[in-house]
Amino acid sequence: MPIITVLTDFGTADSYVAEVKGVLLSRAPGAVLVDITHDVGAGDIRSAAYLLGRTWHRFPASTIHLAVVDPGVGTSRAALAIRAHEQYFVAPDNGILTAVLRDAEVEAVALPTPDSATPTFHGRDVFAPAAAELAVGVSLTELGLRFHGIPKRLAYTSPHQEGRWTVGEIVYVDRFGTVITNLSAELIPSQAVFEIDDLQIGPLVRTYTDVATGGLLAYVGSDGAVEIAVRDGSAAQRLGVGIGGQVRVRVK
Amino acid sequence: MPIITVLTDFGTADSYVAEVKGVLLSRAPGAVLVDITHDVGAGDIRSAAYLLGRTWHRFPASTIHLAVVDPGVGTSRAALAIRAHEQYFVAPDNGILTAVLRDAEVEAVALPTPDSATPTFHGRDVFAPAAAELAVGVSLTELGLRFHGIPKRLAYTSPHQEGRWTVGEIVYVDRFGTVITNLSAELIPSQAVFEIDDLQIGPLVRTYTDVATGGLLAYVGSDGAVEIAVRDGSAAQRLGVGIGGQVRVRVK
Amino acid sequence: MPIITVLTDFGTADSYVAEVKGVLLSRAPGAVLVDITHDVGAGDIRSAAYLLGRTWHRFPASTIHLAVVDPGVGTSRAALAIRAHEQYFVAPDNGILTAVLRDAEVEAVALPTPDSATPTFHGRDVFAPAAAELAVGVSLTELGLRFHGIPKRLAYTSPHQEGRWTVGEIVYVDRFGTVITNLSAELIPSQAVFEIDDLQIGPLVRTYTDVATGGLLAYVGSDGAVEIAVRDGSAAQRLGVGIGGQVRVRVK
Repeated sequence: MPIITVLTDFGTADSYVAEVKGVLLSRAPGAVLVDITHDVGAGDIRSAAYLLGRTWHRFPASTIHLAVVDPGVGTSRAALAIRAHEQYFVAPDNGILTAVLRDAEVEAVALPTPDSATPTFHGRDVFAPAAAELAVGVSLTELGLRFHGIPKRLAYTSPHQEGRWTVGEIVYVDRFGTVITNLSAELIPSQAVFEIDDLQIGPLVRTYTDVATGGLLAYVGSDGAVEIAVRDGSAAQRLGVGIGGQVRVRVK
Repeated sequence: MPIITVLTDFGTADSYVAEVKGVLLSRAPGAVLVDITHDVGAGDIRSAAYLLGRTWHRFPASTIHLAVVDPGVGTSRAALAIRAHEQYFVAPDNGILTAVLRDAEVEAVALPTPDSATPTFHGRDVFAPAAAELAVGVSLTELGLRFHGIPKRLAYTSPHQEGRWTVGEIVYVDRFGTVITNLSAELIPSQAVFEIDDLQIGPLVRTYTDVATGGLLAYVGSDGAVEIAVRDGSAAQRLGVGIGGQVRVRVK
Repeated sequence: MPIITVLTDFGTADSYVAEVKGVLLSRAPGAVLVDITHDVGAGDIRSAAYLLGRTWHRFPASTIHLAVVDPGVGTSRAALAIRAHEQYFVAPDNGILTAVLRDAEVEAVALPTPDSATPTFHGRDVFAPAAAELAVGVSLTELGLRFHGIPKRLAYTSPHQEGRWTVGEIVYVDRFGTVITNLSAELIPSQAVFEIDDLQIGPLVRTYTDVATGGLLAYVGSDGAVEIAVRDGSAAQRLGVGIGGQVRVRVK
């Protein structure tokens, strides 16, 4: 039985995630359910896209990823089921699949909205049934009509040069307050220093314990991008920055 | 192997849920465990009953629902195992099963308290072992003596008329601050307007995007009851209301 | 397929736990994953050790416990895989296994760090692969070289006598604000009274409802140790105490 991962902004205090899981297990008995997270900020498609981008490739081929952060639920935005990278993705067409679509050959169908679907809970009534069908072996093309549009992608600012500086962006802040940038390790000379709001950090170290407790550090994170952290503290709080903030880097 | 759902107020930061799951998987190897939620407010039987009422019918026949919000643990309140709607429910007799018992033919037994049970953790020591036994095929009547009482039900105020107004009640507030009422869609004429503390809302719209960001809306929610929300915001906060609050409705 | 439990301080809002689970399920398809908790305070080895100590023995033989609270990640601290009590434990050598090692015959190996491991996420890159290998039947000794050191244990202050007082310590505070001590039931005469900061509590009662709502109570908790709680409230808040605080007890 394949794995179905579930990524939402529903939180875990209400019944919504469990209602989705009830639908999945009723229609695909034996499916293995794995939570990615349900604590994405309400409607925060950008963070959801980042988290999905970090996780899908850790799962085996044929895994089905159900990703529902869907502030446009009940509108004309398409509901998609996609095959890419030998895995499946079921999600609204709102940019949440941006990281998956990058460099991928994609086969996509638009899911119909059954008359019985409630207008505010397509996660349960449209997306979960489609994910369950994929799990029991229904083919993608049986789920809906081929989607001829281009699935929506979020616009990201790429790192760019400003004089001797390379300018990057903060793409995510995790629960430890670690600031994750879009500067990939290959872009960064080992003697680089980073600057956020005139504060210099760097050069790159290897791991947290390379600085004293409370110290700021820059390092190549577990996803291959430069991160800025405070050992045993929160860099986001210390620096007063968040998603979208600027990080500048130059050779020292 | 059947599914066992688990609904508690234990939170997820401590070991209590895992201790319950260890007991379940030790005694019913292969059982499929699904969390409903563990973030019900401590001792909040009313919210737990609401959440269980929304979820159980999404699961297949023979599912076992373990629901332990149990402020009276260790007292003489009965510990129940119940068959209803072709599913099983294992829970204290304190009203948490109210929504399940409605319109159901019920077979119930009272679970004995083993000498080894600790007085403060029947979730682990009384209810989980019973759920595991059901999962491995032990029949309900082998688990305890037939329960001859009437399982406790919470008292709810039904919607009622006050002059030209129909008066309903807030039964739940979710993590988005959405206010869920006990007014079922069938009771409400399409031109109705709702009133909370003299603020008028309505008539009913279909989904969030039918109002502008920050706008208040009333709509028929995913469980068939009227809900009041703020698009990309919290209605509970905006209106300053909570569970038990009044909602009045009349034809415009 | 064996069970793999997962205990971390990663939180559930980010992708870290899901990345670990993706690795586990890719390498050990069919393994049953159970969350202990991911909400241990960042780097709080002491609480993690307490929670693991409460849970492991609830699981069946051959269960694999993956426990990663690892503030020293990327340093020379050893990465361990251990067999004890007919179960397996995969964890950094930082004291997190203290409760497991007590009175156990232990077989331990040191896990090598693959070149591909990132320096800041050994949970995903070192520990999870080892847990998955154990799950598919690889023997402990194939995972690394025998560990000849003594796995690190946290120092705990044992209860001791001060005149007519027995002095114990608070070892954990749970989400309800219940204060859990290191005073085991056998040490405590039934007429004992407890004292925290000159406030007297006791003698021991059986369960919460033995005091009025808002009342303080001392009782033998579900793990066999004396706990102090407030019925429908928080003892930690009321008493202003936390982990490491002193509890004094004497016969009345």
